[in-house]
Amino acid sequence: MFNSFGNILKLTTFGESHGTAIGGVIDGFPAGVKVDLDAVQKELDRRRPGQSKIVTQRKEPDTVEFLSGIFDGKTTGASIGFVIKNTNQKSKDYNHNTNVYRPSHADYTYDKKYGIRDHRGGGRTSARETANWVVAGALAKQLISHISINAFTSSVGAIFINKPYQDLDFSKTETNDVRCPDLDTADKMITKIKEIRKEGDTIGGTITCVLQNMPVGLGEPIFHKLHAELGKAMLSINAVKGFEFGSGFCGAKMKGSEHNDIFNPDGSTKTNLSGGIQGGISNGMDVYFRVAFKPVATIMQNQATINSEGEAKEIQGKGRHDPCVVPRAVPIVEALAALVVADFYLMNKTRSI
Amino acid sequence: MFNSFGNILKLTTFGESHGTAIGGVIDGFPAGVKVDLDAVQKELDRRRPGQSKIVTQRKEPDTVEFLSGIFDGKTTGASIGFVIKNTNQKSKDYNHNTNVYRPSHADYTYDKKYGIRDHRGGGRTSARETANWVVAGALAKQLISHISINAFTSSVGAIFINKPYQDLDFSKTETNDVRCPDLDTADKMITKIKEIRKEGDTIGGTITCVLQNMPVGLGEPIFHKLHAELGKAMLSINAVKGFEFGSGFCGAKMKGSEHNDIFNPDGSTKTNLSGGIQGGISNGMDVYFRVAFKPVATIMQNQATINSEGEAKEIQGKGRHDPCVVPRAVPIVEALAALVVADFYLMNKTRSI
Amino acid sequence: MFNSFGNILKLTTFGESHGTAIGGVIDGFPAGVKVDLDAVQKELDRRRPGQSKIVTQRKEPDTVEFLSGIFDGKTTGASIGFVIKNTNQKSKDYNHNTNVYRPSHADYTYDKKYGIRDHRGGGRTSARETANWVVAGALAKQLISHISINAFTSSVGAIFINKPYQDLDFSKTETNDVRCPDLDTADKMITKIKEIRKEGDTIGGTITCVLQNMPVGLGEPIFHKLHAELGKAMLSINAVKGFEFGSGFCGAKMKGSEHNDIFNPDGSTKTNLSGGIQGGISNGMDVYFRVAFKPVATIMQNQATINSEGEAKEIQGKGRHDPCVVPRAVPIVEALAALVVADFYLMNKTRSI
Amino acid sequence: MFNSFGNILKLTTFGESHGTAIGGVIDGFPAGVKVDLDAVQKELDRRRPGQSKIVTQRKEPDTVEFLSGIFDGKTTGASIGFVIKNTNQKSKDYNHNTNVYRPSHADYTYDKKYGIRDHRGGGRTSARETANWVVAGALAKQLISHISINAFTSSVGAIFINKPYQDLDFSKTETNDVRCPDLDTADKMITKIKEIRKEGDTIGGTITCVLQNMPVGLGEPIFHKLHAELGKAMLSINAVKGFEFGSGFCGAKMKGSEHNDIFNPDGSTKTNLSGGIQGGISNGMDVYFRVAFKPVATIMQNQATINSEGEAKEIQGKGRHDPCVVPRAVPIVEALAALVVADFYLMNKTRSI
Repeated sequence: MFNSFGNILKLTTFGESHGTAIGGVIDGFPAGVKVDLDAVQKELDRRRPGQSKIVTQRKEPDTVEFLSGIFDGKTTGASIGFVIKNTNQKSKDYNHNTNVYRPSHADYTYDKKYGIRDHRGGGRTSARETANWVVAGALAKQLISHISINAFTSSVGAIFINKPYQDLDFSKTETNDVRCPDLDTADKMITKIKEIRKEGDTIGGTITCVLQNMPVGLGEPIFHKLHAELGKAMLSINAVKGFEFGSGFCGAKMKGSEHNDIFNPDGSTKTNLSGGIQGGISNGMDVYFRVAFKPVATIMQNQATINSEGEAKEIQGKGRHDPCVVPRAVPIVEALAALVVADFYLMNKTRSI
Repeated sequence: MFNSFGNILKLTTFGESHGTAIGGVIDGFPAGVKVDLDAVQKELDRRRPGQSKIVTQRKEPDTVEFLSGIFDGKTTGASIGFVIKNTNQKSKDYNHNTNVYRPSHADYTYDKKYGIRDHRGGGRTSARETANWVVAGALAKQLISHISINAFTSSVGAIFINKPYQDLDFSKTETNDVRCPDLDTADKMITKIKEIRKEGDTIGGTITCVLQNMPVGLGEPIFHKLHAELGKAMLSINAVKGFEFGSGFCGAKMKGSEHNDIFNPDGSTKTNLSGGIQGGISNGMDVYFRVAFKPVATIMQNQATINSEGEAKEIQGKGRHDPCVVPRAVPIVEALAALVVADFYLMNKTRSI
Repeated sequence: MFNSFGNILKLTTFGESHGTAIGGVIDGFPAGVKVDLDAVQKELDRRRPGQSKIVTQRKEPDTVEFLSGIFDGKTTGASIGFVIKNTNQKSKDYNHNTNVYRPSHADYTYDKKYGIRDHRGGGRTSARETANWVVAGALAKQLISHISINAFTSSVGAIFINKPYQDLDFSKTETNDVRCPDLDTADKMITKIKEIRKEGDTIGGTITCVLQNMPVGLGEPIFHKLHAELGKAMLSINAVKGFEFGSGFCGAKMKGSEHNDIFNPDGSTKTNLSGGIQGGISNGMDVYFRVAFKPVATIMQNQATINSEGEAKEIQGKGRHDPCVVPRAVPIVEALAALVVADFYLMNKTRSI
Repeated sequence: MFNSFGNILKLTTFGESHGTAIGGVIDGFPAGVKVDLDAVQKELDRRRPGQSKIVTQRKEPDTVEFLSGIFDGKTTGASIGFVIKNTNQKSKDYNHNTNVYRPSHADYTYDKKYGIRDHRGGGRTSARETANWVVAGALAKQLISHISINAFTSSVGAIFINKPYQDLDFSKTETNDVRCPDLDTADKMITKIKEIRKEGDTIGGTITCVLQNMPVGLGEPIFHKLHAELGKAMLSINAVKGFEFGSGFCGAKMKGSEHNDIFNPDGSTKTNLSGGIQGGISNGMDVYFRVAFKPVATIMQNQATINSEGEAKEIQGKGRHDPCVVPRAVPIVEALAALVVADFYLMNKTRSI
């Protein structure tokens, strides 16, 4: 219940940042699907730390090893177990933090909730967990390969892409370190992140994700609306503070006569303020949504804090962290979107005769 | 799977706007809780149509009838079944819509997904379903009565409350038709909604919700983060397009050194940009979040559309609908928040020895 | 979690024997299935008390009322809500039992578990709940109408059918009050039950159930084996003490060389000691199983017992109860079997591409 | 959904007999429980092949490696991931079976269901999976260490213990290869199994399991009755054909006046035909149940069969298999019983205030 995601296609995960390995079980994946395991590794490489100058310099090779459920290049219908070994956990980087609560981290809440704390880094709360999601999402992508899923960095701090997504070329996303398909904006974002890193600070940003070639009918109307599950998935990512789809928060300022999407004779709509979803169900138009990330809590500046006895302490910014998590979160957003959509795709097979 | 919400405290619902009754089953409610059924009915009355001049003039008395699980004023631990009869369904209001897809409604997606359509109003997609949620939420509120849950209308169109929630007096929320605790702003909002109604149009808005006296430790860290479940719940409400908590989308523009919440010696924090949640778990500070509602799709103006054969049709704005759903959604937001928090409250009893 | 059965096709129920109504929600039923509601009522009539001289003389008309999910004779894909009103609850029959624990009933365990007790009859523990199951099972039967499901009374006390089920004519099951398709045995069973009733006593028995025209491939191999879910379902019926399928307990005395079912060229097997299931998955042969029912605990004799203060009390056998529940349990066994098989039928749609 | 067991304490598994490793994730285990990992390994050793002369001579060291969720000898509340490497998989033993359906094995049903078959041994259907269950069950035992769980071989073929379990000394169970605490009977069973092995045949048997020091109140009344979940768990074990608890199938021949368990003043009962469960809830008396195992399908004799083209084939009995699985299944029965009881123990924490 606590470490599982999905309904029919279900991912259950385990692992702490500084243990032996992280991993998971992918259950409900249908039999007979050809899978490209190199493509899975490639997705994992996109998320990996140390891949460019604007992300954390921790080196985690992050090699996924599949233990079951795949035979002769195809899924067998059995559950798919996998592990990713932790090879470079420098626990000593964290030793100075024993007993101290880092501001805006989960140290305090974990300690109070469980009465026990694994102080070697974030323990279970570490974003390393998202590597598991990328593995599962990469397989899910292959199950629904007819659907295109493209996420990209749409803003860093106050710098944002000033164009509708329709004017972007998604093939450019991977050409730059910040994963922004608009290259001018990408340059500005990279400059900004470097500046922030030099200050020992961090900065927030947003990711936009677009699902194209969506079939009509994915999503369940009441408590499993397509956008509600997408929202829940995105809000599960570390540092996320908000989610909106279609017109989003801007839609709250509009009139119905402006906001309604008028039909074309083929069932498509002239506008798409709905974001491709009506009543929780995809209508065949592009689904698009935006995710807000706060600045990472670990900064390279000294901060006042307390320890578990409530004594005042000063925490020093050490360790190897990201000045901006947004670029590395792009494959995570895509992975979770793929998991959600693939789950609904399987669910939909049971909804009508 | 499809019509249930919650994990331990689980609501399963049924019902269409124009059938005999709607209702549901509340499962997992602990035994021995004193329940005030009048308080449940009062919550339902807050949601009811026809309660003021700025909401739909449909008259639905919406009387909840409990069928099980409560004996001598206490819960028995058995599942709680309830129904709300539909007494005022004017199907004829909708007869002209047979076969026609209303723009930005779920008619098209339902028809394509299920291959069948109950054209009497929205069928299962009607916001009437939310009456079920209010019933369950009102009971959940009583289970966690030590926690205060206050939602209110924070904006209508471009009119918004220009104060932090700490400066508001929540006891004023119910004193005006738009459910805005800031009375000057409330007046402006009401004027705006009346104007919009006269135009035969509708308008969007936002609701802010604040949870106070929260215990530390509610929420589960990976896929059941407190804010992720709150987000999913809110995104399940009809017309919702976005959700943010704590610093939300604004947080995406900030630096870590600005955003981090520094601890006081007692474990509380000097600021609360985190929105009372660290790593998915409540930290004892106020939890607050904001929900964006698009303008209702049903407008009293004629609109071009298509029918199920793809032929061009004109749809006429008839029926009895809300110019702005936001005021009536306030108790719905509170109800879902109560369900989420009560579920985590029960879940938490199993998390440590 | 507590009052739900099934995975994709999920029944959630509520109701006590002496409340206003019992009922439930059937979720996950696909859209577009033609349903015969008279056939549902007929199944309910088979379970009804008062239908013959060898069952309880309580009169419960047990009329099911569907509240949603069905429109113009077809399922819509929405959840199906239903209620059965309690019209003949004679609570006074039970008043003498307030505070007294009836031997081998659930009074004691409910009281200790929940700290509260609804002493009007069995409350939630009453077998009246099984009427809900029959409603859901009758709809499930229509979803998998290509599969034949036939249960019958195979023993009452020491009287049992001395033939393999293949030699029975299931069309005779409903021709006699004890629901035994072997008419000579049926006569002996009826005589026995009348004798037992005269003694103010009760007697146990077994039901055998046969599923024919089963497709190959239903059931999931690890924790959702077809026979494991059938077993769980049957063990949920009040008074059931055992479940076996195929060779059952007899198989435990056999050798592998005797027990193995040798294949015919078409994949069918020459014998069927496996009971139509290999590795948890149906193999296309008949699935058959047997369910043991203890004698009903409520007898018309005085019994020594205690009350909630631990004081010695004598309990008097009053009320209207069944001398043998087995005949009335036949439609319940069929209903649950139908629910299990229909659930696997839907699940199977997601298991391969 | 497909490879998970339990509600709050949930085990999700993966792995095939001839892959790299098997393993799983244990979710919902509370934080702060001291765990003895050597005790877990010891349970695994009890299940291991090759431990005595009457079981299969395959050598599988079966060493469990925990990857997460345990820190400094205590559970952290995080999910517990574990793997057991497959070190001795002799796939060549099975090569002759490619394409051939072994009688009364799952080869045929897997092939038809998934359209793909991993012919290296049983694949996912192998009883090797039960090693995962033993790991999880051994941890569950430690969570509910106040409850005693003792299973033992109660019959092999027609040889059975002719005493009530109250007259047995469970400390003798592990003193002999067949795991029968009645030593005279144990000798006869061992002789019988050796004889059967010499014939190249296999034989069935039964296991009885007794839960002592049970608290009152475990189990949920409707669809999660304690005995129904125990039954489902036991029916999930490979080769199981039947389950009964308390009076079981014998109870079906009794009268109510004989079967009712009369109370003592302290709430215990003079007899215990109920098997410690009333209305699905434990009443504090011993819970006891019996599980029937068919003879293993793999025999060392030649058998006629077919291949996937429906052609007649002869299958030769090779490989290393158990003449009687019952002794090795004893720790498996205990493990699953522990998982079921521990799950209800956690669930119960949420059922009353």
